[in-house]
Amino acid sequence: MIISADRARRPSDFSRETVPRPSSNAACPLCPGNEGRTPSEVLAYRNGSGANQPGWQIRVTPNKYPVLEIHGDLNRQGEGLFDKMEGIGAHEVIVETPDHGKSLGELTEKEVEDVLRAFRDRINDLKRDVRLRYILLFKNHGAAAGATLEHSHSQLIALPVVPKRVIEEMEGAKRYYDFKERCVFCDIVHQERRDQVRVVSESERFMVLEPYAPRFPFETWILPRQHASHFEATDPAHLQDLSWVLRSTLRKIDKVLERPPYNFVLHTAPVQESAIAHYHWHLELMPKLTKVAGFEWGTGFYINPTPPEESAQFLREAGLG
Amino acid sequence: MIISADRARRPSDFSRETVPRPSSNAACPLCPGNEGRTPSEVLAYRNGSGANQPGWQIRVTPNKYPVLEIHGDLNRQGEGLFDKMEGIGAHEVIVETPDHGKSLGELTEKEVEDVLRAFRDRINDLKRDVRLRYILLFKNHGAAAGATLEHSHSQLIALPVVPKRVIEEMEGAKRYYDFKERCVFCDIVHQERRDQVRVVSESERFMVLEPYAPRFPFETWILPRQHASHFEATDPAHLQDLSWVLRSTLRKIDKVLERPPYNFVLHTAPVQESAIAHYHWHLELMPKLTKVAGFEWGTGFYINPTPPEESAQFLREAGLG
Repeated sequence: MIISADRARRPSDFSRETVPRPSSNAACPLCPGNEGRTPSEVLAYRNGSGANQPGWQIRVTPNKYPVLEIHGDLNRQGEGLFDKMEGIGAHEVIVETPDHGKSLGELTEKEVEDVLRAFRDRINDLKRDVRLRYILLFKNHGAAAGATLEHSHSQLIALPVVPKRVIEEMEGAKRYYDFKERCVFCDIVHQERRDQVRVVSESERFMVLEPYAPRFPFETWILPRQHASHFEATDPAHLQDLSWVLRSTLRKIDKVLERPPYNFVLHTAPVQESAIAHYHWHLELMPKLTKVAGFEWGTGFYINPTPPEESAQFLREAGLG
Repeated sequence: MIISADRARRPSDFSRETVPRPSSNAACPLCPGNEGRTPSEVLAYRNGSGANQPGWQIRVTPNKYPVLEIHGDLNRQGEGLFDKMEGIGAHEVIVETPDHGKSLGELTEKEVEDVLRAFRDRINDLKRDVRLRYILLFKNHGAAAGATLEHSHSQLIALPVVPKRVIEEMEGAKRYYDFKERCVFCDIVHQERRDQVRVVSESERFMVLEPYAPRFPFETWILPRQHASHFEATDPAHLQDLSWVLRSTLRKIDKVLERPPYNFVLHTAPVQESAIAHYHWHLELMPKLTKVAGFEWGTGFYINPTPPEESAQFLREAGLG
């Protein structure tokens, strides 16, 4: 990653879009009353009402236009030089609130906690299918960040392979562990707590920081302070603390960057592996402020105009916990 | 890469933007007459006029807001856990035409050939500085593809390291070569010529194809048919042929996708290495039709709604050579 502080760096220097506040939309397939427009739910938190009826707080359904579906065998085969396999897996939508007008950061702490609980419950359910090697949880917020529906939702994709980027991250962490016999993420947590220059906030169980040499301006990581490789093993006390931390972080970002589009991606260990000493789950949150273009495609390097020490300060000064 | 043909696939299904035709802009720093608004030129093809004066056909200047500059030493050092080095290098802008209103695909064959010649000449000049290990040539066309100036231009970035993505591509090619004793790109050219399903066009010296399992819809590669690892060693006959091929490909893409934003990136071997048997330079052209979002960031996989066999057919049917 290349820090280029001659370029735009302050929050107001980015020509980003502000995500519009959704107004109610009778045709929204994620709104209560329109449950028939999505496939049948696989999970819902509701107060007594029947499946696929209104009355839910969180609702999870298969994606109507899945990139992958659960069926069949992998059927690995060659095609001349090339290799292919069938795309078995799952693609689900986590509807985070029945309220069409609210973003994730605008929900109550209890509601955010329910969203995180739904993430955990869906991973624990899907991992029972041993063909599924990796479960990716992510959120695209705002059209510029790839969201095609404005009603607040996250997505889950279960894959029959461990993705390239996850393998790279795990291999890097493994090399560090082999050399030092310590988890690199634990070391980052300790060093950042001591230095206090890239820390955004800290709770009893979590740490929010701007990583050293981030790819994107205002890229923000949330890590558990205690070592843990698998998000889905998170206990209720940690989930409650995480909901507070995630909510306050989203609110800081909304305040400092004026409701920007963003992506977040949960980085967690492959589901079929047991607890791993060298890998540490965390959430990576990336406001969409710059465009990925020829340079990034050609190199895999990223040009970032905002040093993380500065973005951490802007977020700390936003207050909000 | 995941082909998901249930989703949008035909050219008209993408909600892309059309790059507007620039109208003349007196303040454009790349227009003739405004040479003083850019740093002094490092190369120009002109008919007798003086340096940094109008009368040029192609003009190359350092970027006014460089991400890297040539000065100093690398100065590698640690910062606790982390590593850093100074960003020595070069960042140049290749102004492809004096005409503010013309895109690269709208230039004449001779003019496109001059652009390619400028690419080659700048690489050959910069590589004499042995600290520079890799020279990346790329183009961002249209705001959605990251262009910040509408006047048609390409960019060059010279780096003191070989980028991660280049190393990965070269290592993959090397493993194939070690196993087969053949260049994987030569094998792709032969297999695609035989199959004719992903070929867009072919000239005496170049091949245009939609790669197997492309990351993006309408991703298009241009490869020399004869093995060659370094673009900057291209002879005049090849440059002339390439200008015809590149121009006709850009015109096909403009016709089929209605002047979309795009990026292209020249993939060529590291400049300080001599000719390499396992690596084959090529140009990768990516119309900007989809958004990179949480799934791609989390996995390094790409979801592509358009099978390459279909995009190849759309481009072949566009005619235009």
